[in-house]
Amino acid sequence: MRDPIRVLLLGTGQMGAGIARIALQKRGLQIVGAYARRSQRAGLDLGRVIGLERNLGIALHNDLEDLIERVRPHVALQATCSRLDDALGEVSMLVRHGIDVISIAEELSHPASRSQPIAEELGRLAREHSATVVGTGINPGFVFDLLIITLTGVCADVQSITATRVNDLSPYGPSVLNSQGVGLSPEAFANGLANGTVVGHIGFQQSIHMICRALGWEIDRIAETREPILSQSYRATPFIKVEPGDAAGCLHTALAYRDDTALITLVHPQQIHPGLAGVRTGDTIEISGTPNVRLDGSPEIPGGVATCALAVNMIPRVLNAAPGLYSMADLPVPAALLGDVRRLVHQAL
Amino acid sequence: MRDPIRVLLLGTGQMGAGIARIALQKRGLQIVGAYARRSQRAGLDLGRVIGLERNLGIALHNDLEDLIERVRPHVALQATCSRLDDALGEVSMLVRHGIDVISIAEELSHPASRSQPIAEELGRLAREHSATVVGTGINPGFVFDLLIITLTGVCADVQSITATRVNDLSPYGPSVLNSQGVGLSPEAFANGLANGTVVGHIGFQQSIHMICRALGWEIDRIAETREPILSQSYRATPFIKVEPGDAAGCLHTALAYRDDTALITLVHPQQIHPGLAGVRTGDTIEISGTPNVRLDGSPEIPGGVATCALAVNMIPRVLNAAPGLYSMADLPVPAALLGDVRRLVHQAL
Repeated sequence: MRDPIRVLLLGTGQMGAGIARIALQKRGLQIVGAYARRSQRAGLDLGRVIGLERNLGIALHNDLEDLIERVRPHVALQATCSRLDDALGEVSMLVRHGIDVISIAEELSHPASRSQPIAEELGRLAREHSATVVGTGINPGFVFDLLIITLTGVCADVQSITATRVNDLSPYGPSVLNSQGVGLSPEAFANGLANGTVVGHIGFQQSIHMICRALGWEIDRIAETREPILSQSYRATPFIKVEPGDAAGCLHTALAYRDDTALITLVHPQQIHPGLAGVRTGDTIEISGTPNVRLDGSPEIPGGVATCALAVNMIPRVLNAAPGLYSMADLPVPAALLGDVRRLVHQAL
Repeated sequence: MRDPIRVLLLGTGQMGAGIARIALQKRGLQIVGAYARRSQRAGLDLGRVIGLERNLGIALHNDLEDLIERVRPHVALQATCSRLDDALGEVSMLVRHGIDVISIAEELSHPASRSQPIAEELGRLAREHSATVVGTGINPGFVFDLLIITLTGVCADVQSITATRVNDLSPYGPSVLNSQGVGLSPEAFANGLANGTVVGHIGFQQSIHMICRALGWEIDRIAETREPILSQSYRATPFIKVEPGDAAGCLHTALAYRDDTALITLVHPQQIHPGLAGVRTGDTIEISGTPNVRLDGSPEIPGGVATCALAVNMIPRVLNAAPGLYSMADLPVPAALLGDVRRLVHQAL
């Protein structure tokens, strides 16, 4: 049996910890190092940081280049940020060392949505250094793009696409809740939108561009709207309290138009305790075409564990791909990894 | 603008005609020839044969090798048969001429399910002649395999998978209805099962092996059962009459076991006019895992148009792939082709 696939973890927050716990369960994978941005984490043992009762003998490290040179990973899983600009330093360094990268940074799911020149440069760098880069996650990366694209595969023609993802923010921590404006008065929510502290969902641009590229659709513009979901009742989580009349979350929608026709409509209301307002969570994809296709799931695919699983499950796909920058629609689909991951990897590592 | 992608059609029955009508709508594709097995079709114009009101200037041809040499296609779409043995002569001849092949023959969706040596030999032949081969269709090829595999991609672990496809056979012609035992008495249905004229669904073995290979699951055995769906009432289509007490269709199920645990359960009741028995058609996929995933669609994705669309929509995926034999889970997912197909093809033709 050949040696394990050497995995480097970047980020040890909630998502990084979830990724690590999944990767540790997989035969044929070995976490060989863990990078943390926060200097106060340096030297801590990964096992403790991700909530295990034992040490793993993997000390968190703040110097990425030194860590790369010491542990020589085959693939890195990045869970440190959301934005392309913020992700790019780490990704470029990994790529220059010839290491494949799977990132859950939302804007990495389709970098050209943010910047065509950056995407081209990153693709060139990846090919030059024989590295493969892909961004993944539940959304962007799966529900609003890969799954939609896959379902259009049965269509001879498509007139329009509508997808809705209604989810529950209750399990999330302060940074997600704040970015969705949870707990804010209507005025504070409006101010948060204006000053950029209330963001809503990150990924509509990426999902829409992935769909359009896969289908060959040309669009003129994307219109996004964000509005508070005002609560009728008191709601609370361990991290936040919402008074009646204040925002329990954010209803964020994006419409992609050609002329005055909305070709793609993506609707994503996110709030804490939606059940208190009688709201049923779920994912719905509706394709108006030949044939019509409609798929529904309730409750929604839970975003946290799904994003962590996708990052791990893409490992064999990325190791098998030719060097370059990919979106999830450019590679074979991920699958749950239930056997030895090495058996799924075709090329020599 | 470079020249169109040259498409050769094999088969001009109901499915071949559907494929042709879709391919004719796509920018960047050109049907350059049509092969028919039936000698009485030789010389007929494809346009008339597929139900258009006009000639296309494409005469049906019975000599495949001669046709290949005359029209020099880039890709061939095979809609002539269901079984691997029956498909192999045409596929091998195309491959030896370096032509990519997309087949809707059910057993081509995962040839190793039928014969590992044949699959290996076909893969070797494809690589030797720089051709790519894939089998597709709604089922096998999509609902019971690609879609299930894709959905497991969000799972950290999977305990079991259950999928049900309840569909309506009313639109189908005599050969499909006969293979499902529609109109037979219970005794005649049992005899049909025994003598192989009642077949039920072709593709359970292929779908199960595709799932197991993608997930790395090992199974001991697959158990299939077929039983008549006996009608309480009179039902009829233009091609068949069903008396009360006789079979309106076939309930075909397949279970894949490890030890005594059913890891995969696929349930596929097919009958004419299910609504007369109060049966709601639809597709359901349920994954018991971390997280649980359940998706539902009603009515079912219609099999006829979906299979034809998948065959056409896979063209850019197959043209882009490295030479070899693939299943649908080995290539990037298909997407509806709404723009110029040539823009999706990366390599020189």
